[in-house]
Amino acid sequence: MIELAVFGAGRIGQVHALNAAAHPSVHLKYIVEPVASDHLDRLAMQTGAMLCEPETVFTDPAIKGVIIASSTDTHAALLLRAAQTGKAVFCEKPVSLDFSTVEDVTNEVEKTGVACLLGFQRRYDPDFRLVRERIVSGQAGELEHIVMHTRDPSPPPRNYIERSGGMFRDQAIHDFDMARYLLGEEIATVYAVGNCLIDQEIAAAGDIDTAMITLTSVSGRFVQMVNCRRAPFGYDQRLEALCSREVLYVENRPQRGVMIADAQGFHSSTPMNYFIERFTGAYRAEMHAFIDMIATGSTPLATIRDGLEAQRLAEAAIVSMNTGKPIQFSTDWHPDAEERR
Amino acid sequence: MIELAVFGAGRIGQVHALNAAAHPSVHLKYIVEPVASDHLDRLAMQTGAMLCEPETVFTDPAIKGVIIASSTDTHAALLLRAAQTGKAVFCEKPVSLDFSTVEDVTNEVEKTGVACLLGFQRRYDPDFRLVRERIVSGQAGELEHIVMHTRDPSPPPRNYIERSGGMFRDQAIHDFDMARYLLGEEIATVYAVGNCLIDQEIAAAGDIDTAMITLTSVSGRFVQMVNCRRAPFGYDQRLEALCSREVLYVENRPQRGVMIADAQGFHSSTPMNYFIERFTGAYRAEMHAFIDMIATGSTPLATIRDGLEAQRLAEAAIVSMNTGKPIQFSTDWHPDAEERR
Amino acid sequence: MIELAVFGAGRIGQVHALNAAAHPSVHLKYIVEPVASDHLDRLAMQTGAMLCEPETVFTDPAIKGVIIASSTDTHAALLLRAAQTGKAVFCEKPVSLDFSTVEDVTNEVEKTGVACLLGFQRRYDPDFRLVRERIVSGQAGELEHIVMHTRDPSPPPRNYIERSGGMFRDQAIHDFDMARYLLGEEIATVYAVGNCLIDQEIAAAGDIDTAMITLTSVSGRFVQMVNCRRAPFGYDQRLEALCSREVLYVENRPQRGVMIADAQGFHSSTPMNYFIERFTGAYRAEMHAFIDMIATGSTPLATIRDGLEAQRLAEAAIVSMNTGKPIQFSTDWHPDAEERR
Amino acid sequence: MIELAVFGAGRIGQVHALNAAAHPSVHLKYIVEPVASDHLDRLAMQTGAMLCEPETVFTDPAIKGVIIASSTDTHAALLLRAAQTGKAVFCEKPVSLDFSTVEDVTNEVEKTGVACLLGFQRRYDPDFRLVRERIVSGQAGELEHIVMHTRDPSPPPRNYIERSGGMFRDQAIHDFDMARYLLGEEIATVYAVGNCLIDQEIAAAGDIDTAMITLTSVSGRFVQMVNCRRAPFGYDQRLEALCSREVLYVENRPQRGVMIADAQGFHSSTPMNYFIERFTGAYRAEMHAFIDMIATGSTPLATIRDGLEAQRLAEAAIVSMNTGKPIQFSTDWHPDAEERR
Repeated sequence: MIELAVFGAGRIGQVHALNAAAHPSVHLKYIVEPVASDHLDRLAMQTGAMLCEPETVFTDPAIKGVIIASSTDTHAALLLRAAQTGKAVFCEKPVSLDFSTVEDVTNEVEKTGVACLLGFQRRYDPDFRLVRERIVSGQAGELEHIVMHTRDPSPPPRNYIERSGGMFRDQAIHDFDMARYLLGEEIATVYAVGNCLIDQEIAAAGDIDTAMITLTSVSGRFVQMVNCRRAPFGYDQRLEALCSREVLYVENRPQRGVMIADAQGFHSSTPMNYFIERFTGAYRAEMHAFIDMIATGSTPLATIRDGLEAQRLAEAAIVSMNTGKPIQFSTDWHPDAEERR
Repeated sequence: MIELAVFGAGRIGQVHALNAAAHPSVHLKYIVEPVASDHLDRLAMQTGAMLCEPETVFTDPAIKGVIIASSTDTHAALLLRAAQTGKAVFCEKPVSLDFSTVEDVTNEVEKTGVACLLGFQRRYDPDFRLVRERIVSGQAGELEHIVMHTRDPSPPPRNYIERSGGMFRDQAIHDFDMARYLLGEEIATVYAVGNCLIDQEIAAAGDIDTAMITLTSVSGRFVQMVNCRRAPFGYDQRLEALCSREVLYVENRPQRGVMIADAQGFHSSTPMNYFIERFTGAYRAEMHAFIDMIATGSTPLATIRDGLEAQRLAEAAIVSMNTGKPIQFSTDWHPDAEERR
Repeated sequence: MIELAVFGAGRIGQVHALNAAAHPSVHLKYIVEPVASDHLDRLAMQTGAMLCEPETVFTDPAIKGVIIASSTDTHAALLLRAAQTGKAVFCEKPVSLDFSTVEDVTNEVEKTGVACLLGFQRRYDPDFRLVRERIVSGQAGELEHIVMHTRDPSPPPRNYIERSGGMFRDQAIHDFDMARYLLGEEIATVYAVGNCLIDQEIAAAGDIDTAMITLTSVSGRFVQMVNCRRAPFGYDQRLEALCSREVLYVENRPQRGVMIADAQGFHSSTPMNYFIERFTGAYRAEMHAFIDMIATGSTPLATIRDGLEAQRLAEAAIVSMNTGKPIQFSTDWHPDAEERR
Repeated sequence: MIELAVFGAGRIGQVHALNAAAHPSVHLKYIVEPVASDHLDRLAMQTGAMLCEPETVFTDPAIKGVIIASSTDTHAALLLRAAQTGKAVFCEKPVSLDFSTVEDVTNEVEKTGVACLLGFQRRYDPDFRLVRERIVSGQAGELEHIVMHTRDPSPPPRNYIERSGGMFRDQAIHDFDMARYLLGEEIATVYAVGNCLIDQEIAAAGDIDTAMITLTSVSGRFVQMVNCRRAPFGYDQRLEALCSREVLYVENRPQRGVMIADAQGFHSSTPMNYFIERFTGAYRAEMHAFIDMIATGSTPLATIRDGLEAQRLAEAAIVSMNTGKPIQFSTDWHPDAEERR
């Protein structure tokens, strides 16, 4: 049995704790969560895990891996401590809202050689994986451009926005990651426009709710991204990859399999409402990959460096939006250097 | 140029007259229509045809073919006269509402050797043809059973019902024909149930508005038919052919290509509303086939005998419904013999 | 905590055991399974249940309910024993392949007053429930007719067929139940035709693989059923309910949300492959309903009498198919009486 | 009867000639086409029009309107001559590949007061019109952003590319027009990237085959455009308008209504192949609007000025692509001024 601990018992922490505990080779030993609640007690009961302090986890030599699903501002320190104590890490994105911190932690963690899976769960979704497989295998032909739509069901509350790092770092980062994953090469230019068109609370918090982003890859291929904090019908999470032989579409999954027809037409259901539901299978597969990484040394689909590079794109998009100019981008690009220009 | 004449300038007569006149090898010379109207004048102008009496058509040696789209009670006499005068015939179904008359006219016409295309336009529809091709070619594997849905957009008026011969002879006859066309063999048993569930005017006219029909072929394969005088969303005309390697579906064609999504779900348009619109391409192809039959002697997809055999199935379904018993059917079966049993 | 026991640890027994064990108010205490296996050991470990003999269950006063998911030939005896010992019952259909036994057991169990939920899981599926709700609430208007398609992904092995009671008792019984559930009234006539068109092993076992069934309700409404042991694309489980204002469709749920487009057209995935996967949510909801029935005395959506009445329809369909005649049906109808006619 | 003349009898000229001739209030008197062909003779026969020289048209006082569908390099002179002689004009886009010429001709034509409909047929398509109506009426809520996909079925031949003015002026111009039409306001910034990824013949002709364009409107709303010279499945012409209450999608229309299901999944047909087929109804409606404009003085949906403004956006996109910079755009923007910067 592989012994694991989870940090954080919020919405996504619960998903990870239950997935870990349900795995036949895992013993979920600890849950670390500073805020007591009925939810927490029930989670402990369902998983059989003990509640404890962070250091109990790090000083227990039986613990082989930790799952970091606590609030963003705790990620960096927990990651470093896990790396120092030789625990494999599953870390929810982002490592930090501060890019330089992400860069430093990434370098530190990589130096220790500790394996780290970064929670870009979309890479583990069977639909997105199928798209990737048909591109990588050559079945679909040459990938020429990608169009992605990510729209939340409704604007998050202002206090979420304020702690989120902004729409590019919080939401679009998954699309930046998917762009890199499918292109298999780095990005050369980033252009972004954004505005607050939906919810003035978001503007008041200094953020945007609608953005259009264009990426050009080093070899001259393109990615168009639409990011938005609302779709009238719910969660909109789609991708279209135009290749020379095939177009690959990841479509929304409907909540219901009932179609209703009447004098107005044919009516089908809204999509699965939100990422916890839409990516149920992806979160499970991601946890299995983490366990497999510990057990067999397999490489995760998303590493801490993938997190760094996606966040670098988010930073560039922010600078592009703020300056109104396309950014000449590379993996050497740094937001601070840009500001000094 | 092939010179043709049209009998009848009602809704379907207009379709045929315009399709004939638009054909580059055809001169539509005459329209025969006893009832004067603005519609008729416009049709004459658009097609360049002259209005005339029936005998003008039959005694004009330049006329190579006639299109019979007048009221059902005139079909038999026009067919016989056309056969006597050696004009090729395109005849709308049915030849007559009286089965023995259909039988007699069919035998007479066949004796003259005059070519006759019967207006089962669905055989000429590209979608139904594709289904047939994949079955005949073996691509789809062995055909095992067929499910057909035919539902009108709304119940026809009582005076239409009264002259229609009843739902089996008027509407289901197209499905009986399609069953024979796709099975490529004759029917061994017919079972039908029917009721008036939608519009009591139809019951008052002695007809039904809903029927379920089961056919078993000579080799033991099955056809399920749903026939109805209303679908809440409009015209419902679908087919599903289960074969050993493929299932082939003919689906409804939407009126509009717009999808609207809102908080209730995804909304697409009602289907093309009614056969004139749905089978635009089929009517054109059918006319081209008629012209080709005259020009080259090609065999039409539906002959007067196909009309007779589809109507025989309709008669058997009526007897089955009225007696509550399945009918042991063959091409020798006759409704009068059944009644004498 | 409600203490429960499961009889049978085959495919469906495992589903029920895991669903019961995952419920926060349930302690799954026992599993009864005569055949040892690794699967069984793992199930015991995952659920925390003890393996034991049947009588341990029946003589343990702490056990409030039993889940009968063992082989069909054991259902009747277990049901009766549970009823005698006052345990609430969740029983997989059928109670017995012998109709008189079903009748007797139903009467016996009802006499004891013990609550019994019969495993027609489709009644608990959210899609089928939505259809039922829109009919019952009047939103859809008057229900006029129903068309159901049930096709297995591929023919079961011969030894399954031999123990199954035949396609009507084994597969179509769910559709007979759904017909009764949605119509909300009893059936007046049953007509069935069937044949072995797909797999001659099935004919050799004395069964059929394809059937068409027509039901007429007491008030004159209709149900068309297509039942088949294979669909080329996998599991086909659909329903279409034509009502006066709406048509309600339960559609297949696709396995994947990826669409692939190429020069041949647009390609989407096969449906969820088979009932365990398709009805995951229904099985969970059904177990919750069983637990709620024990906890609060609520009425289950399907009772042992619903099982009896669905099976009576299956018996009538068999007689219809064998005699070639429609059956005049009522809840008094009995296959033995029919044979004596 | 309104007497009209058509200039040009190529593919689109034939469509317009037939639509004009089929209209009950129109007499198509002349066709002007310098190149003799069988096609031309058949068109003359089908429409009843005479072949003649340009000046015959302009000096015939009976001619009320002219349809300019000849090669692009003849548009400007014919437009000006029609305006001088007081003939209403239906002109295919573009007026000229040279932007200053478009500007001059637009001003000249407007000065004469002659009515001019510009052939942005998409504005007349019932699907795009429905989208516009739901936005204008407020039903859909506030329009926030638009995503458009235009992909040709396959790269055009090199000699077409060479005379086309490039992908932005030739293909994307319809999308620029649709953006203006739906937004109902002018554009403030234009950003475009493009590349030749599909067909090196296109690069050799100095053009691109793939482009991504982002428009920001004066009020801060967005348009994303994907333009491409190939889609593996054929003609891809879609639009998605995100509004506050509804998302409106214009989808591709399938060629066939047949779905084929097999062990690999569900297969539906490719879309209608190319604009002549896809926009059959739009071309007819556009001609009716032209005739109505002549008969009643109604305003066309697209004027010569709309053509100028769409082309201005195309010019800006070209400059953006070539300079790698977003363009600060207004209706005063001019490509020459930009070059002088």
